[in-house]
Amino acid sequence: MRLTKYFLPVTKETPSDAQIVSHKLMLRAGLVRQTAAGIYAWLPLGLRVLRKIEEVVREEQNRAGAVELLMPTLQSADLWRQSGRYDAYGPEMLRIKDRHDREMLYGPTNEEMITSLFRDGVKSYRDLPRTLYHIQWKFRDEVRPRFGVMRGREFLMKDAYSFDIDEAGARQSYYTQLLAYLRTFQRMGIKAVPMKAASGPIGGDLSHEFIVLAPTGESEVFYDSRFEDLDWKATSDDAEALFNQVSSLYAATDETHDETLWKDVPDDRKRQGRGIEVGHIFYFGTKYSASMGMTVQTADGRQVHPEMGSYGVGVSRLVGAIIEASHDENGIIWPESIAPFKVGLINMRADDASCAKAADEIYARLEGAGIETLYDDRDERGGAKFATMDVIGLPWQLIVGPKGLEKGVVELKNRTTGERRELPVDQALVELCAA
Amino acid sequence: MRLTKYFLPVTKETPSDAQIVSHKLMLRAGLVRQTAAGIYAWLPLGLRVLRKIEEVVREEQNRAGAVELLMPTLQSADLWRQSGRYDAYGPEMLRIKDRHDREMLYGPTNEEMITSLFRDGVKSYRDLPRTLYHIQWKFRDEVRPRFGVMRGREFLMKDAYSFDIDEAGARQSYYTQLLAYLRTFQRMGIKAVPMKAASGPIGGDLSHEFIVLAPTGESEVFYDSRFEDLDWKATSDDAEALFNQVSSLYAATDETHDETLWKDVPDDRKRQGRGIEVGHIFYFGTKYSASMGMTVQTADGRQVHPEMGSYGVGVSRLVGAIIEASHDENGIIWPESIAPFKVGLINMRADDASCAKAADEIYARLEGAGIETLYDDRDERGGAKFATMDVIGLPWQLIVGPKGLEKGVVELKNRTTGERRELPVDQALVELCAA
Repeated sequence: MRLTKYFLPVTKETPSDAQIVSHKLMLRAGLVRQTAAGIYAWLPLGLRVLRKIEEVVREEQNRAGAVELLMPTLQSADLWRQSGRYDAYGPEMLRIKDRHDREMLYGPTNEEMITSLFRDGVKSYRDLPRTLYHIQWKFRDEVRPRFGVMRGREFLMKDAYSFDIDEAGARQSYYTQLLAYLRTFQRMGIKAVPMKAASGPIGGDLSHEFIVLAPTGESEVFYDSRFEDLDWKATSDDAEALFNQVSSLYAATDETHDETLWKDVPDDRKRQGRGIEVGHIFYFGTKYSASMGMTVQTADGRQVHPEMGSYGVGVSRLVGAIIEASHDENGIIWPESIAPFKVGLINMRADDASCAKAADEIYARLEGAGIETLYDDRDERGGAKFATMDVIGLPWQLIVGPKGLEKGVVELKNRTTGERRELPVDQALVELCAA
Repeated sequence: MRLTKYFLPVTKETPSDAQIVSHKLMLRAGLVRQTAAGIYAWLPLGLRVLRKIEEVVREEQNRAGAVELLMPTLQSADLWRQSGRYDAYGPEMLRIKDRHDREMLYGPTNEEMITSLFRDGVKSYRDLPRTLYHIQWKFRDEVRPRFGVMRGREFLMKDAYSFDIDEAGARQSYYTQLLAYLRTFQRMGIKAVPMKAASGPIGGDLSHEFIVLAPTGESEVFYDSRFEDLDWKATSDDAEALFNQVSSLYAATDETHDETLWKDVPDDRKRQGRGIEVGHIFYFGTKYSASMGMTVQTADGRQVHPEMGSYGVGVSRLVGAIIEASHDENGIIWPESIAPFKVGLINMRADDASCAKAADEIYARLEGAGIETLYDDRDERGGAKFATMDVIGLPWQLIVGPKGLEKGVVELKNRTTGERRELPVDQALVELCAA
């Protein structure tokens, strides 16, 4: 993409209403703009990141056997009356009346709707187990929205729901999602630690929060360093063994921290830090299947309410959380798997015909090789271009200038390490293809 | 995808509330379920079609140089007060109050918001021309929602907005979108004819509707048969020449039909039929840029309001429109470019171990070749499986049965022509790869 054809309104000023670094950087780097309190438009560069995160989530859900559908944003109040939650839900639910004065709401979550859809579509144990998910905009009317997309009101969430014939099956579905979550976050290049949540709605050990480690996180966290050494991507598909492994290691937020258990962790493995919640999974049994009258027939002819779980990932929140975990004083440092472009190509002298021609050719070769490239072909000073590339945080910068071209070289900069090397053009392209 | 792991609630009954064939077939084929009046959940198979249509639209927008972003579903009333439309818009606008009693609305369209975002992001003629688009859920509170997703209340729309420094530029942007639209619909395997719309908001000739030809369409249409012969995919990128070509041919709905002009069309080229509107493009000048105070500086230092156009495609509506245009008495016939899967693989005898093994192997080979396959591995009668495959309308059916396997053959059925042929397995796979 040529910057002269793009829409990337970067700003030098730090917006005064932004308190945390991810919010500041998302505004400065032209990723989002607030359009109302807690509501954001995703500008082209931000949307690319959002879509990449969404795609990693989707791929790992599919790999875990979950099936994607898409439920609408607006729901009828009557649906929520079936579970009894319409009156119980607080002022965070955005209640709406349509032109016929029918009561509706903007979905903050979808347990009722998925139960209703699945109830009407299946009859027997042969249709189970099944985990269904969607990735859709939700609305929670936060009393004080803040921290940019980290605590917005309209936000993108992946929510999955599992249906099983019995508790043993439901536990397996839960373990499978736990594994999918750990793989999801690892693929995004961030460390996320699963922590037993304060209390599942029906008690028991089947509720975990996933906390991204970031020095600016909202919660204090305590965890065993072995979590840092585990490679979930390479972990076998034995989800139950994984769950047992996770359960054997200490991890807690300040809300659930237990000093007695903590002192049993060897001192050299004790890690303390801060973190941001980016996912939450629950097993909640028959709460919705029973209240909404969903039954399936078992192999021996009985009618039972399926055992259910729900599994959420804050997709738009992750954009902010990843920036909190990965930035420096010059701007964002995107992990490569979710970077909006892999390479930022800088033409140092757009007013120099031979330099522009060389940069155009390199751009064509990068595009031809399928390398996602943002090409700064604007007629601006080199310093401004460097600052822009640093703040938007693409993994690689390829800098083309007249002096280098005389020697037949370009400069390749790694955004993470800051390392800059002069290389012949061909070698730089080979390295970028391999990177 | 194995049907035993999927969620595809097909029904034999024709739902009583469905009046038109696409609505009936979408319910019978398990593509959607209504969750409230005019609001639908997209079940897994339906979502796959929706995403494919969306992707064709996106690719042609990108090819036309439009830049994607994503605006939120909810908007503030104050934004619409800037253009004066908040009070002017009728009861189709869903008006909402949040917990602080702030007035909001569910966006039916986005002229105000895009003008505001672009206004705050650009300053000079060098930032123009630019066409920005998004693909997002909209809401229009139809008094009588009906015809399934064809006239729903919550619907998915692609809306693009062009900004140009002057009218000549705006015309070019309009022509470019016109070409993109014709390519978009042709790639979906449907005939869409551009028709001058009744009246652009500022008059002139720059407003077109795009009508998909379907015998069950809502409008009567009159057009020159030359529209059917044109290959927009192969058309040169000279958008202005295309516009002139389109303008030289007669096409009108019953609303704009002109008998005087119609009689000038040679009789052998006169075509009359019915159609469904799936897109609408407008040039509307400075209506929003002026009312919302957006100016840019020209090359010679003047401040001007950019000239704007808007360009809509009904993405979710297209699912219904394509079914109206492409079905038979047994069900849907998906054009291959937007089919949810390319192949439906039928195991005739799931209870026969050797037949199941052969079908499993074929499934693995299809998946390995990157051919999207829905594998009916259920333990059901063959007749039920045939009926399911016909109603969901995948382009190819590959039928594996014990009798054929004894002879080393499988059966390949083309859903469009109904042709069935017995072929050796290898040859069937080669043909499907090439198809």
